[in-house]
Amino acid sequence: MNQNQPIAVVLLSGGLDSATCLAWAKEQGFIVHALSFDYGQRHAVELQCAKMQARHQMVEQQIISLDLRAFGGSALTDNLEVPKHAMAEEMGSDIPVTYVPARNTVFLSYALAYAEVRGAYDLVIGVNAMDYSGYPDCRPDYIAAYEAMANLALKATVTGKKKIKIHTPLQHLTKAQIAAEAVRLEVDLAHTSSCYDPVVKGNTILACGQCDSCLLRKKGFNEAGFEDKIIYNN
Amino acid sequence: MNQNQPIAVVLLSGGLDSATCLAWAKEQGFIVHALSFDYGQRHAVELQCAKMQARHQMVEQQIISLDLRAFGGSALTDNLEVPKHAMAEEMGSDIPVTYVPARNTVFLSYALAYAEVRGAYDLVIGVNAMDYSGYPDCRPDYIAAYEAMANLALKATVTGKKKIKIHTPLQHLTKAQIAAEAVRLEVDLAHTSSCYDPVVKGNTILACGQCDSCLLRKKGFNEAGFEDKIIYNN
Repeated sequence: MNQNQPIAVVLLSGGLDSATCLAWAKEQGFIVHALSFDYGQRHAVELQCAKMQARHQMVEQQIISLDLRAFGGSALTDNLEVPKHAMAEEMGSDIPVTYVPARNTVFLSYALAYAEVRGAYDLVIGVNAMDYSGYPDCRPDYIAAYEAMANLALKATVTGKKKIKIHTPLQHLTKAQIAAEAVRLEVDLAHTSSCYDPVVKGNTILACGQCDSCLLRKKGFNEAGFEDKIIYNN
Repeated sequence: MNQNQPIAVVLLSGGLDSATCLAWAKEQGFIVHALSFDYGQRHAVELQCAKMQARHQMVEQQIISLDLRAFGGSALTDNLEVPKHAMAEEMGSDIPVTYVPARNTVFLSYALAYAEVRGAYDLVIGVNAMDYSGYPDCRPDYIAAYEAMANLALKATVTGKKKIKIHTPLQHLTKAQIAAEAVRLEVDLAHTSSCYDPVVKGNTILACGQCDSCLLRKKGFNEAGFEDKIIYNN
Protein backbone atom coordinates (compact mmCIF):
# COMPACT_ATOMS: atom_id res chain seq x y z
CA MET A 1 0.00 0.00 0.00
CA ASN A 2 1.35 3.38 -1.07
CA GLN A 3 1.79 5.75 1.87
CA ASN A 4 0.60 8.64 -0.26
CA GLN A 5 -2.41 6.83 -1.64
CA PRO A 6 -5.45 8.97 -0.83
CA ILE A 7 -8.38 7.59 1.17
CA ALA A 8 -11.92 7.84 -0.20
CA VAL A 9 -14.98 7.43 2.00
CA VAL A 10 -17.71 5.70 -0.02
CA LEU A 11 -21.33 5.79 1.15
CA LEU A 12 -22.39 2.16 0.75
CA SER A 13 -26.06 1.29 1.08
CA GLY A 14 -25.85 -2.15 -0.47
CA GLY A 15 -27.76 -1.16 -3.59
CA LEU A 16 -26.53 -1.47 -7.16
CA ASP A 17 -25.45 2.17 -7.38
CA SER A 18 -23.35 2.35 -4.23
CA ALA A 19 -21.75 -1.06 -4.89
CA THR A 20 -20.75 0.26 -8.32
CA CYS A 21 -19.32 3.40 -6.68
CA LEU A 22 -17.26 1.22 -4.34
CA ALA A 23 -15.71 -0.63 -7.28
CA TRP A 24 -15.22 2.65 -9.14
CA ALA A 25 -13.34 4.20 -6.19
CA LYS A 26 -11.04 1.19 -5.98
CA GLU A 27 -10.35 1.42 -9.71
CA GLN A 28 -9.49 5.11 -9.27
CA GLY A 29 -6.68 4.08 -6.94
CA PHE A 30 -8.15 5.21 -3.63
CA ILE A 31 -7.77 3.37 -0.36
CA VAL A 32 -11.49 2.82 0.10
CA HIS A 33 -13.40 3.04 3.39
CA ALA A 34 -17.06 2.10 3.14
CA LEU A 35 -19.51 3.89 5.42
CA SER A 36 -22.91 2.27 5.90
CA PHE A 37 -25.88 3.23 8.04
CA ASP A 38 -28.28 1.26 10.13
CA TYR A 39 -31.25 3.62 10.24
CA GLY A 40 -33.99 1.11 10.83
CA GLN A 41 -34.63 0.89 7.11
CA ARG A 42 -37.57 -1.41 6.46
CA HIS A 43 -35.52 -3.20 3.86
CA ALA A 44 -32.82 -4.31 6.35
CA VAL A 45 -31.59 -6.82 3.79
CA GLU A 46 -29.93 -3.83 2.11
CA LEU A 47 -27.55 -3.47 5.07
CA GLN A 48 -26.68 -7.17 4.82
CA CYS A 49 -25.85 -6.59 1.17
CA ALA A 50 -23.66 -3.63 2.16
CA LYS A 51 -21.65 -5.92 4.46
CA MET A 52 -21.32 -8.53 1.71
CA GLN A 53 -20.19 -5.90 -0.80
CA ALA A 54 -17.52 -4.57 1.57
CA ARG A 55 -16.26 -8.10 2.18
CA HIS A 56 -16.39 -9.03 -1.51
CA GLN A 57 -14.48 -5.91 -2.53
CA MET A 58 -12.17 -6.27 0.49
CA VAL A 59 -12.51 -2.75 1.87
CA GLU A 60 -12.71 -1.46 5.42
CA GLN A 61 -16.28 -0.77 6.51
CA GLN A 62 -17.81 1.24 9.33
CA ILE A 63 -21.49 0.84 10.14
CA ILE A 64 -23.06 3.80 11.91
CA SER A 65 -26.30 3.38 13.84
CA LEU A 66 -28.64 6.32 13.37
CA ASP A 67 -31.24 7.31 15.89
CA LEU A 68 -34.53 7.06 14.07
CA ARG A 69 -36.40 9.67 16.04
CA ALA A 70 -35.56 12.54 13.71
CA PHE A 71 -36.49 10.55 10.61
CA GLY A 72 -40.20 9.86 10.60
CA GLY A 73 -42.31 10.67 7.61
CA SER A 74 -41.08 8.21 4.99
CA ALA A 75 -42.32 4.92 3.56
CA LEU A 76 -38.76 3.64 4.04
CA THR A 77 -38.77 4.11 7.80
CA ASP A 78 -42.45 4.22 8.78
CA ASN A 79 -45.35 1.94 8.00
CA LEU A 80 -46.47 3.81 4.90
CA GLU A 81 -47.17 1.55 1.95
CA VAL A 82 -44.50 1.48 -0.74
CA PRO A 83 -46.20 2.28 -4.06
CA LYS A 84 -46.20 -0.48 -6.67
CA HIS A 85 -46.55 -0.45 -10.45
CA ALA A 86 -46.06 3.28 -10.60
CA MET A 87 -43.07 5.46 -11.18
CA ALA A 88 -42.87 8.64 -9.15
CA GLU A 89 -43.89 10.93 -11.95
CA GLU A 90 -47.10 8.98 -12.49
CA MET A 91 -48.18 9.51 -8.90
CA GLY A 92 -49.01 13.18 -9.29
CA SER A 93 -46.04 14.24 -7.19
CA ASP A 94 -42.44 14.76 -8.19
CA ILE A 95 -41.14 13.37 -4.92
CA PRO A 96 -42.30 9.91 -3.82
CA VAL A 97 -43.27 8.68 -0.34
CA THR A 98 -39.99 6.76 -0.17
CA TYR A 99 -38.21 10.10 0.31
CA VAL A 100 -36.51 10.22 3.75
CA PRO A 101 -36.17 13.76 5.15
CA ALA A 102 -32.62 15.09 4.81
CA ARG A 103 -31.22 11.57 4.42
CA ASN A 104 -28.26 12.35 2.18
CA THR A 105 -27.50 15.46 4.23
CA VAL A 106 -27.23 13.34 7.37
CA PHE A 107 -25.25 10.59 5.60
CA LEU A 108 -22.79 13.06 4.07
CA SER A 109 -22.36 14.80 7.43
CA TYR A 110 -21.25 11.57 9.05
CA ALA A 111 -19.00 10.89 6.06
CA LEU A 112 -17.47 14.33 6.55
CA ALA A 113 -16.75 13.69 10.23
CA TYR A 114 -15.37 10.25 9.43
CA ALA A 115 -13.24 11.63 6.61
CA GLU A 116 -11.70 14.36 8.74
CA VAL A 117 -10.78 11.95 11.53
CA ARG A 118 -9.09 9.65 9.02
CA GLY A 119 -7.39 12.32 6.93
CA ALA A 120 -9.56 11.72 3.87
CA TYR A 121 -10.70 14.46 1.51
CA ASP A 122 -12.63 12.40 -1.02
CA LEU A 123 -16.24 11.35 -0.51
CA VAL A 124 -18.11 9.17 -3.00
CA ILE A 125 -21.90 8.98 -3.24
CA GLY A 126 -23.97 7.14 -5.83
CA VAL A 127 -26.50 9.85 -6.59
CA ASN A 128 -27.90 10.00 -10.05
CA ALA A 129 -29.77 12.74 -11.83
CA MET A 130 -30.81 10.87 -14.96
CA ASP A 131 -33.12 8.08 -13.90
CA TYR A 132 -33.50 9.47 -10.41
CA SER A 133 -36.68 9.05 -8.44
CA GLY A 134 -37.25 12.71 -7.71
CA TYR A 135 -35.20 13.10 -4.53
CA PRO A 136 -33.99 16.70 -4.16
CA ASP A 137 -30.84 15.58 -2.35
CA CYS A 138 -29.60 13.66 -5.40
CA ARG A 139 -29.30 16.64 -7.73
CA PRO A 140 -25.99 18.17 -8.89
CA ASP A 141 -26.75 21.60 -7.43
CA TYR A 142 -27.42 20.04 -4.03
CA ILE A 143 -24.12 18.16 -4.15
CA ALA A 144 -22.24 21.31 -5.20
CA ALA A 145 -23.81 23.27 -2.33
CA TYR A 146 -22.91 20.49 0.11
CA GLU A 147 -19.30 20.51 -1.06
CA ALA A 148 -19.09 24.31 -0.69
CA MET A 149 -20.45 24.05 2.86
CA ALA A 150 -18.09 21.18 3.72
CA ASN A 151 -15.08 23.23 2.72
CA LEU A 152 -16.05 25.89 5.27
CA ALA A 153 -16.89 23.39 8.01
CA LEU A 154 -13.72 21.49 8.78
CA LYS A 155 -10.52 22.23 10.62
CA ALA A 156 -8.80 20.17 7.91
CA THR A 157 -10.00 22.37 5.04
CA VAL A 158 -9.87 25.72 6.85
CA THR A 159 -6.32 25.33 8.14
CA GLY A 160 -4.92 23.15 5.36
CA LYS A 161 -4.62 23.51 1.63
CA LYS A 162 -6.67 20.48 0.65
CA LYS A 163 -10.33 20.64 -0.23
CA ILE A 164 -13.17 18.18 0.21
CA LYS A 165 -14.28 16.70 -3.10
CA ILE A 166 -17.60 14.88 -3.40
CA HIS A 167 -17.39 12.41 -6.26
CA THR A 168 -20.62 11.40 -7.97
CA PRO A 169 -19.45 8.99 -10.65
CA LEU A 170 -23.01 7.94 -11.55
CA GLN A 171 -24.47 11.44 -11.67
CA HIS A 172 -24.97 11.60 -15.43
CA LEU A 173 -25.36 7.90 -16.21
CA THR A 174 -28.64 6.24 -17.14
CA LYS A 175 -29.58 3.10 -15.24
CA ALA A 176 -28.54 1.12 -18.33
CA GLN A 177 -25.10 2.74 -18.22
CA ILE A 178 -24.84 2.02 -14.48
CA ALA A 179 -25.73 -1.62 -15.14
CA ALA A 180 -23.02 -1.80 -17.80
CA GLU A 181 -20.50 -0.14 -15.47
CA ALA A 182 -21.38 -2.59 -12.68
CA VAL A 183 -20.81 -5.52 -15.03
CA ARG A 184 -17.51 -4.05 -16.27
CA LEU A 185 -16.29 -3.52 -12.69
CA GLU A 186 -17.34 -7.09 -11.77
CA VAL A 187 -19.69 -6.03 -9.02
CA ASP A 188 -21.25 -8.97 -7.17
CA LEU A 189 -24.72 -8.22 -8.52
CA ALA A 190 -26.47 -11.08 -6.73
CA HIS A 191 -25.71 -9.39 -3.41
CA THR A 192 -26.96 -5.94 -4.21
CA SER A 193 -30.44 -4.96 -3.10
CA SER A 194 -32.27 -2.10 -4.77
CA CYS A 195 -35.81 -3.10 -3.84
CA TYR A 196 -37.85 -0.96 -1.45
CA ASP A 197 -39.90 -3.97 -0.34
CA PRO A 198 -37.88 -7.19 -0.55
CA VAL A 199 -38.84 -10.58 0.90
CA VAL A 200 -36.31 -13.01 2.35
CA LYS A 201 -37.05 -16.73 1.89
CA GLY A 202 -34.41 -18.87 3.55
CA ASN A 203 -31.11 -17.52 2.27
CA THR A 204 -32.63 -15.99 -0.83
CA ILE A 205 -33.51 -12.32 -1.26
CA LEU A 206 -36.52 -11.80 -3.47
CA ALA A 207 -36.96 -8.31 -4.89
CA CYS A 208 -40.58 -7.26 -5.34
CA GLY A 209 -40.07 -6.33 -8.98
CA GLN A 210 -42.77 -3.70 -8.78
CA CYS A 211 -41.52 -0.73 -6.74
CA ASP A 212 -39.95 2.33 -8.40
CA SER A 213 -36.48 1.05 -7.70
CA CYS A 214 -37.09 -2.46 -9.09
CA LEU A 215 -38.74 -1.04 -12.19
CA LEU A 216 -35.76 1.25 -12.82
CA ARG A 217 -33.28 -1.57 -12.30
CA LYS A 218 -35.07 -4.03 -14.56
CA LYS A 219 -35.39 -1.42 -17.28
CA GLY A 220 -31.69 -0.56 -16.94
CA PHE A 221 -30.45 -4.13 -17.30
CA ASN A 222 -32.85 -4.77 -20.19
CA GLU A 223 -31.66 -1.70 -22.06
CA ALA A 224 -28.01 -2.51 -21.38
CA GLY A 225 -28.50 -6.07 -22.58
CA PHE A 226 -26.96 -7.61 -19.48
CA GLU A 227 -28.38 -10.30 -17.27
CA ASP A 228 -29.04 -9.19 -13.71
CA LYS A 229 -28.22 -11.67 -10.95
CA ILE A 230 -30.92 -10.79 -8.44
CA ILE A 231 -34.15 -12.77 -8.16
CA TYR A 232 -37.55 -11.15 -8.52
CA ASN A 233 -40.60 -12.35 -6.64
CA ASN A 234 -42.69 -11.76 -9.74
CA MET B 1 -51.61 28.22 20.87
CA ASN B 2 -51.99 29.94 17.51
CA GLN B 3 -52.43 27.43 14.66
CA ASN B 4 -50.26 29.57 12.42
CA GLN B 5 -47.52 30.05 14.97
CA PRO B 6 -44.29 28.83 13.33
CA ILE B 7 -42.16 26.11 14.92
CA ALA B 8 -38.47 26.70 15.55
CA VAL B 9 -36.02 23.86 16.19
CA VAL B 10 -33.41 25.03 18.69
CA LEU B 11 -30.15 23.13 19.11
CA LEU B 12 -29.85 22.88 22.89
CA SER B 13 -26.58 21.66 24.38
CA GLY B 14 -27.22 22.82 27.91
CA GLY B 15 -24.60 25.54 27.80
CA LEU B 16 -25.17 29.24 28.42
CA ASP B 17 -25.37 30.10 24.73
CA SER B 18 -27.94 27.52 23.67
CA ALA B 19 -30.08 28.12 26.77
CA THR B 20 -30.12 31.80 25.84
CA CYS B 21 -31.12 30.89 22.27
CA LEU B 22 -33.99 28.81 23.63
CA ALA B 23 -35.34 31.78 25.58
CA TRP B 24 -34.74 34.06 22.58
CA ALA B 25 -36.75 31.80 20.27
CA LYS B 26 -39.65 31.75 22.74
CA GLU B 27 -39.55 35.54 22.96
CA GLN B 28 -39.67 35.72 19.15
CA GLY B 29 -43.00 33.94 19.26
CA PHE B 30 -41.99 30.55 17.93
CA ILE B 31 -43.37 27.24 19.13
CA VAL B 32 -40.02 25.94 20.29
CA HIS B 33 -38.76 22.36 19.92
CA ALA B 34 -35.40 21.71 21.56
CA LEU B 35 -33.10 19.16 19.94
CA SER B 36 -30.29 17.79 22.08
CA PHE B 37 -27.64 15.18 21.37
CA ASP B 38 -26.15 12.41 23.42
CA TYR B 39 -22.83 11.93 21.67
CA GLY B 40 -20.83 10.50 24.54
CA GLN B 41 -19.59 13.96 25.45
CA ARG B 42 -17.13 13.68 28.33
CA HIS B 43 -19.00 16.45 30.07
CA ALA B 44 -22.28 14.47 30.24
CA VAL B 45 -23.53 16.91 32.85
CA GLU B 46 -24.16 19.26 29.91
CA LEU B 47 -26.92 16.95 28.65
CA GLN B 48 -28.50 16.96 32.11
CA CYS B 49 -28.51 20.73 31.97
CA ALA B 50 -30.14 20.58 28.53
CA LYS B 51 -32.98 18.53 30.01
CA MET B 52 -33.35 20.96 32.90
CA GLN B 53 -33.40 23.95 30.54
CA ALA B 54 -36.12 22.38 28.37
CA ARG B 55 -38.20 21.67 31.47
CA HIS B 56 -37.57 25.10 32.97
CA GLN B 57 -38.54 26.85 29.73
CA MET B 58 -41.41 24.38 29.18
CA VAL B 59 -40.59 23.38 25.61
CA GLU B 60 -40.78 20.03 23.84
CA GLN B 61 -37.42 18.29 23.68
CA GLN B 62 -36.04 15.45 21.58
CA ILE B 63 -32.75 13.83 22.55
CA ILE B 64 -30.94 12.09 19.70
CA SER B 65 -28.27 9.48 20.40
CA LEU B 66 -25.32 9.77 18.06
CA ASP B 67 -23.07 6.88 17.20
CA LEU B 68 -19.63 7.96 18.33
CA ARG B 69 -17.62 5.93 15.87
CA ALA B 70 -17.35 8.70 13.30
CA PHE B 71 -16.33 11.28 15.90
CA GLY B 72 -12.93 10.40 17.26
CA GLY B 73 -10.15 12.94 17.34
CA SER B 74 -11.40 15.46 19.90
CA ALA B 75 -10.66 16.20 23.54
CA LEU B 76 -14.43 16.35 24.06
CA THR B 77 -15.02 12.74 23.01
CA ASP B 78 -11.64 11.02 23.43
CA ASN B 79 -9.19 10.90 26.30
CA LEU B 80 -7.16 13.87 25.18
CA GLU B 81 -6.41 16.33 27.96
CA VAL B 82 -8.49 19.51 27.97
CA PRO B 83 -6.07 22.46 28.02
CA LYS B 84 -6.18 24.68 31.11
CA HIS B 85 -5.16 28.27 31.74
CA ALA B 86 -4.75 28.92 28.05
CA MET B 87 -7.04 30.39 25.48
CA ALA B 88 -6.94 28.82 22.04
CA GLU B 89 -4.96 31.59 20.46
CA GLU B 90 -2.17 31.22 23.00
CA MET B 91 -1.69 27.55 22.15
CA GLY B 92 -0.05 28.18 18.80
CA SER B 93 -3.08 26.93 16.90
CA ASP B 94 -6.23 28.71 15.88
CA ILE B 95 -8.37 25.65 16.46
CA PRO B 96 -8.24 23.94 19.87
CA VAL B 97 -8.21 20.20 20.67
CA THR B 98 -11.80 20.52 21.89
CA TYR B 99 -12.88 20.82 18.24
CA VAL B 100 -15.12 17.86 17.27
CA PRO B 101 -14.95 16.98 13.55
CA ALA B 102 -18.00 18.20 11.64
CA ARG B 103 -20.03 18.49 14.83
CA ASN B 104 -22.29 21.38 13.89
CA THR B 105 -22.72 19.91 10.41
CA VAL B 106 -24.03 16.67 11.91
CA PHE B 107 -26.18 18.51 14.48
CA LEU B 108 -27.72 20.81 11.86
CA SER B 109 -28.38 17.85 9.58
CA TYR B 110 -30.45 16.14 12.25
CA ALA B 111 -32.19 19.44 12.95
CA LEU B 112 -33.01 19.70 9.26
CA ALA B 113 -34.53 16.21 9.16
CA TYR B 114 -36.43 16.88 12.36
CA ALA B 115 -37.66 20.26 11.07
CA GLU B 116 -38.93 18.83 7.80
CA VAL B 117 -40.87 16.05 9.52
CA ARG B 118 -42.51 18.58 11.83
CA GLY B 119 -43.17 21.27 9.24
CA ALA B 120 -40.64 23.71 10.71
CA TYR B 121 -38.52 26.07 8.62
CA ASP B 122 -36.63 27.85 11.38
CA LEU B 123 -33.50 26.46 13.01
CA VAL B 124 -31.72 28.23 15.87
CA ILE B 125 -28.09 27.62 16.80
CA GLY B 126 -26.01 29.47 19.38
CA VAL B 127 -22.86 29.99 17.35
CA ASN B 128 -20.85 33.05 18.03
CA ALA B 129 -18.12 34.71 15.98
CA MET B 130 -16.92 37.32 18.50
CA ASP B 131 -15.47 35.49 21.47
CA TYR B 132 -15.48 32.18 19.64
CA SER B 133 -12.93 29.50 20.31
CA GLY B 134 -11.73 29.09 16.75
CA TYR B 135 -14.20 26.49 15.49
CA PRO B 136 -14.65 26.78 11.73
CA ASP B 137 -18.27 25.58 11.93
CA CYS B 138 -19.29 28.58 14.07
CA ARG B 139 -18.50 31.26 11.47
CA PRO B 140 -21.11 33.26 9.55
CA ASP B 141 -19.91 32.07 6.13
CA TYR B 142 -20.25 28.46 7.23
CA ILE B 143 -23.80 29.07 8.46
CA ALA B 144 -24.71 30.85 5.20
CA ALA B 145 -23.33 27.95 3.16
CA TYR B 146 -25.26 25.47 5.30
CA GLU B 147 -28.48 27.38 4.79
CA ALA B 148 -27.93 27.50 1.01
CA MET B 149 -27.36 23.74 0.95
CA ALA B 150 -30.40 23.09 3.18
CA ASN B 151 -32.66 24.94 0.76
CA LEU B 152 -31.63 22.57 -2.03
CA ALA B 153 -31.89 19.44 0.13
CA LEU B 154 -35.47 19.17 1.25
CA LYS B 155 -38.72 18.16 -0.35
CA ALA B 156 -40.31 20.92 1.75
CA THR B 157 -38.14 23.69 0.28
CA VAL B 158 -37.89 22.36 -3.26
CA THR B 159 -41.62 21.82 -3.76
CA GLY B 160 -42.90 24.58 -1.48
CA LYS B 161 -42.40 28.30 -1.30
CA LYS B 162 -40.91 28.47 2.18
CA LYS B 163 -37.21 28.54 2.85
CA ILE B 164 -35.11 27.22 5.70
CA LYS B 165 -33.74 30.02 7.87
CA ILE B 166 -30.89 29.38 10.29
CA HIS B 167 -31.09 31.91 13.09
CA THR B 168 -27.89 32.76 14.95
CA PRO B 169 -29.03 35.35 17.48
CA LEU B 170 -25.68 35.33 19.32
CA GLN B 171 -23.51 35.52 16.21
CA HIS B 172 -22.27 39.08 16.74
CA LEU B 173 -22.56 39.34 20.52
CA THR B 174 -19.61 39.35 22.89
CA LYS B 175 -19.75 36.94 25.83
CA ALA B 176 -20.59 39.93 28.04
CA GLN B 177 -23.54 40.77 25.79
CA ILE B 178 -24.66 37.12 25.86
CA ALA B 179 -24.47 37.15 29.69
CA ALA B 180 -26.61 40.30 29.75
CA GLU B 181 -29.09 38.75 27.29
CA ALA B 182 -29.31 35.57 29.40
CA VAL B 183 -30.05 37.66 32.49
CA ARG B 184 -32.65 39.74 30.64
CA LEU B 185 -34.38 36.59 29.34
CA GLU B 186 -34.33 35.08 32.85
CA VAL B 187 -32.36 32.00 31.84
CA ASP B 188 -31.85 29.54 34.70
CA LEU B 189 -28.10 30.20 34.84
CA ALA B 190 -27.39 27.75 37.67
CA HIS B 191 -28.38 24.89 35.38
CA THR B 192 -26.28 25.79 32.38
CA SER B 193 -22.95 24.07 31.91
CA SER B 194 -20.27 25.62 29.75
CA CYS B 195 -17.25 23.85 31.26
CA TYR B 196 -15.25 21.34 29.19
CA ASP B 197 -14.16 19.48 32.32
CA PRO B 198 -16.75 19.76 35.10
CA VAL B 199 -16.83 17.75 38.34
CA VAL B 200 -20.05 16.61 40.00
CA LYS B 201 -20.05 16.48 43.81
CA GLY B 202 -23.35 15.20 45.14
CA ASN B 203 -26.00 17.29 43.40
CA THR B 204 -23.64 20.15 42.68
CA ILE B 205 -21.94 20.79 39.36
CA LEU B 206 -18.52 22.35 39.78
CA ALA B 207 -17.07 24.05 36.69
CA CYS B 208 -13.30 23.79 36.43
CA GLY B 209 -12.90 27.55 36.01
CA GLN B 210 -9.78 27.07 33.93
CA CYS B 211 -10.71 25.71 30.51
CA ASP B 212 -11.25 28.00 27.49
CA SER B 213 -14.98 27.92 27.96
CA CYS B 214 -14.90 28.74 31.71
CA LEU B 215 -12.43 31.57 31.13
CA LEU B 216 -14.68 33.07 28.43
CA ARG B 217 -17.76 32.77 30.61
CA LYS B 218 -16.16 34.30 33.71
CA LYS B 219 -14.76 37.18 31.65
CA GLY B 220 -18.19 37.73 30.07
CA PHE B 221 -20.09 37.95 33.35
CA ASN B 222 -17.38 40.15 34.87
CA GLU B 223 -17.51 42.57 31.96
CA ALA B 224 -21.30 42.61 31.93
CA GLY B 225 -21.39 43.27 35.68
CA PHE B 226 -23.79 40.42 36.39
CA GLU B 227 -23.43 37.66 38.92
CA ASP B 228 -23.21 34.17 37.41
CA LYS B 229 -25.05 31.40 39.21
CA ILE B 230 -22.74 28.49 38.50
CA ILE B 231 -20.13 27.30 40.99
CA TYR B 232 -16.45 27.10 40.12
CA ASN B 233 -14.14 24.49 41.55
CA ASN B 234 -11.44 27.12 41.90
